[in-house]
Amino acid sequence: MRMYDIIKKKRDGIELSKEEINFFVDGYAKSEIPDYQASAFIMAIFLQKMTKQETVYLTDAMMRSGDVIDLSKIDGIKVDKHSTGGVGDKTTITLAPLVASCGAPVAKMSGRGLGHTGGTLDKLEAIPGLSIEMNQDKFTDNVNTHKIAVCGQTATIVPADKKLYALRDVTATVDNISLIASSIMSKKLASGSDAIVLDVKTGSGAFMKELDDSFNLAKEMVDIGNGMDRETIGVITDMDQPLGFAVGNSLEVIEAIETLKGNGPKDFTELCLSLGSYMLILSKVVNTYEEGRKMLEESISSGKALDKLREFIEIQGGNKDVVDNYDLLPGATNKIDVKSIKKGYVSKIEAETVGISAMMLGAGRETKEDELDLGTGIVLKKKVGDMVEEGETLACMYVNDMKKFEAAKERLLSAYTISDQRPVERKLVHGVVTKDGVKRF
Amino acid sequence: MRMYDIIKKKRDGIELSKEEINFFVDGYAKSEIPDYQASAFIMAIFLQKMTKQETVYLTDAMMRSGDVIDLSKIDGIKVDKHSTGGVGDKTTITLAPLVASCGAPVAKMSGRGLGHTGGTLDKLEAIPGLSIEMNQDKFTDNVNTHKIAVCGQTATIVPADKKLYALRDVTATVDNISLIASSIMSKKLASGSDAIVLDVKTGSGAFMKELDDSFNLAKEMVDIGNGMDRETIGVITDMDQPLGFAVGNSLEVIEAIETLKGNGPKDFTELCLSLGSYMLILSKVVNTYEEGRKMLEESISSGKALDKLREFIEIQGGNKDVVDNYDLLPGATNKIDVKSIKKGYVSKIEAETVGISAMMLGAGRETKEDELDLGTGIVLKKKVGDMVEEGETLACMYVNDMKKFEAAKERLLSAYTISDQRPVERKLVHGVVTKDGVKRF
Repeated sequence: MRMYDIIKKKRDGIELSKEEINFFVDGYAKSEIPDYQASAFIMAIFLQKMTKQETVYLTDAMMRSGDVIDLSKIDGIKVDKHSTGGVGDKTTITLAPLVASCGAPVAKMSGRGLGHTGGTLDKLEAIPGLSIEMNQDKFTDNVNTHKIAVCGQTATIVPADKKLYALRDVTATVDNISLIASSIMSKKLASGSDAIVLDVKTGSGAFMKELDDSFNLAKEMVDIGNGMDRETIGVITDMDQPLGFAVGNSLEVIEAIETLKGNGPKDFTELCLSLGSYMLILSKVVNTYEEGRKMLEESISSGKALDKLREFIEIQGGNKDVVDNYDLLPGATNKIDVKSIKKGYVSKIEAETVGISAMMLGAGRETKEDELDLGTGIVLKKKVGDMVEEGETLACMYVNDMKKFEAAKERLLSAYTISDQRPVERKLVHGVVTKDGVKRF
Repeated sequence: MRMYDIIKKKRDGIELSKEEINFFVDGYAKSEIPDYQASAFIMAIFLQKMTKQETVYLTDAMMRSGDVIDLSKIDGIKVDKHSTGGVGDKTTITLAPLVASCGAPVAKMSGRGLGHTGGTLDKLEAIPGLSIEMNQDKFTDNVNTHKIAVCGQTATIVPADKKLYALRDVTATVDNISLIASSIMSKKLASGSDAIVLDVKTGSGAFMKELDDSFNLAKEMVDIGNGMDRETIGVITDMDQPLGFAVGNSLEVIEAIETLKGNGPKDFTELCLSLGSYMLILSKVVNTYEEGRKMLEESISSGKALDKLREFIEIQGGNKDVVDNYDLLPGATNKIDVKSIKKGYVSKIEAETVGISAMMLGAGRETKEDELDLGTGIVLKKKVGDMVEEGETLACMYVNDMKKFEAAKERLLSAYTISDQRPVERKLVHGVVTKDGVKRF
């Protein structure tokens, strides 16, 4: 088999076989196939597209390019959750203990933030003492005993994707649905879970701006998951403005805890209850969405979910007192209100711009080497649909280095659009994709 | 300017500017743009195509990536001829002295053979003593004094094309009309001639198998040439079987000389007269095709053309006696007739297969390092349309190393198709493309 012929075949729009796709992924991961052949091939895929079958083969080959985690020693049906990412997305911190408190095993591997805001691991590390380093045995034990463990992704998971993504990133071949779907799914599948709930974001702050594209991506990933015998559900949720109010590591931890106390923002609480219900269905703890939702709501109101968070923090070496005393988290020396210069309805908040503003304060990384300033960030006071008076506070900025404030404030203000007309309200959950089909709400 | 954005633009089918194309060619030639970005870009060009304007910009940028030869010290209008290549194509050896003998300056840079058969330089070097090495002054002097000089292409001509072609060759991006046309034309234009006659081959033995593709390629190149103010004519000629009878270096030199003596094969003579007439028009020696053809025919019948060949061989250091004594050329110790195993009409001779057979005997290079065996090759005795009896000779093979004979003979026989029906005769010249349009014959 020659890479040349495989490139030519895809170039001419002919479907590739499993063997041909394996040949590429194996050869590229081992550096036997040079970057210049891989990039020509990926551009051919970008423009000629891949069939569902090819995408499943690609995902499978990528998954097998590195370690495939074996979670078989963990009892029960392990359901993973993955979000395509957005601003203010602290979902795992709330959802993991919430679902675990209902009896579903949560064995989660998370990543660090690559975009403008921190990732789940960065946020968790705002909790004093909490560590995400643990070996496989400890991870297994924790889930079997406590139903919950979160650790960092090992470097040896899906090396082919890491290499390929770096290449796509510099050759304008990122935005292809098959490549995006196989990249995400290969990592999820290598993490060893039995079933997957995908939170596919849609809107101006999401990777996929258009609703149809988001549904298509969800469908592609659900088909891959089910095609590889892992039951997969895709939930299409809104990211047209930041999720909840808090953006920044400590601030998001606080909001996540408040949500477990029943005081969470309406949109974020809804997201956790929705995703959680599907997770409980897939793990066979409940039979219906309504049953799951009721169980989750009861776990919050009874304090069971909050107790599970305390337990989780403790077994991972953290100080569980943070749950009741937020001063234990890294903070900011300056809390500065940013005020509206006009009266009207908030008609738009660009999530990405808010994320960049928070990053400028130190909450996210501009380059991979940047150290985070975990106490900094933004708490929105007004969200889309709210009425604001001239001079009324739009958001509060949490700042440590005042040199960074002015530029970040300008950026934050530019994220807001204030207009005379009340905007049309957007749903939080736009629909669900399961193996049985697509349901739009 | 960033290469990433240029790739993305072409990927999305948007026309590139002159500056963007320059940025790519300059950056790639200087290795500032890596191979993996170049190959993704070239695949995007392959699949999204280039406009005429982009193709002209690409050609221009490639031409300027290295030395551009200045022929302004040579008197008259310098007309170059280029063939897209085929088997048995010894045209330059006949055409250069023929046209020069009519008063048109021939300042020709040629290449070595990269395919299965030798190139013009390889063939010329079969003539004892003849050298194609000379400096620019000597080259200019020779053309001004004798109207003819042939030298090797310098390594510094169009380095961007050399680099890009090597990349296309391993990424399945060779067969794109804009890339082929700009590759050929950038080299022709860098060679400094004022006008160009292109011999675009068509048929099973040509790079372009289909007549329409050949016309399209000719049109593309003619548009580039004229777009860069060098009057260009494309002649579409047949390569559905080998040209003439001889394939192999010494053998082709002999056939080229015989043609100047008026004893050339019908098809090859017709090709030389046709291309020559257009060259005389472009160099303004004559006004019409008919006038040019008459002048060429007279130069052959009067011996003027043959004298010019003698003169050419002499000034390039060769032994002009070869013109009258073919034994001075490298020969072959074995001349073996290959006979037909059935009776019928020759309905097809695959040119490429004949070329490979000759290569197997030593007439061409399998790898760049191979030494040629200049005396070896094949002389066809039957061509398409001829009747052959069972046991009658189809071709004569000129062999030095008998170990190579059997396999080469099998290959040669496989090139022939003998059938009961007389095949439809193909034209030698299928049409002409000028700045005024396309004429099909």
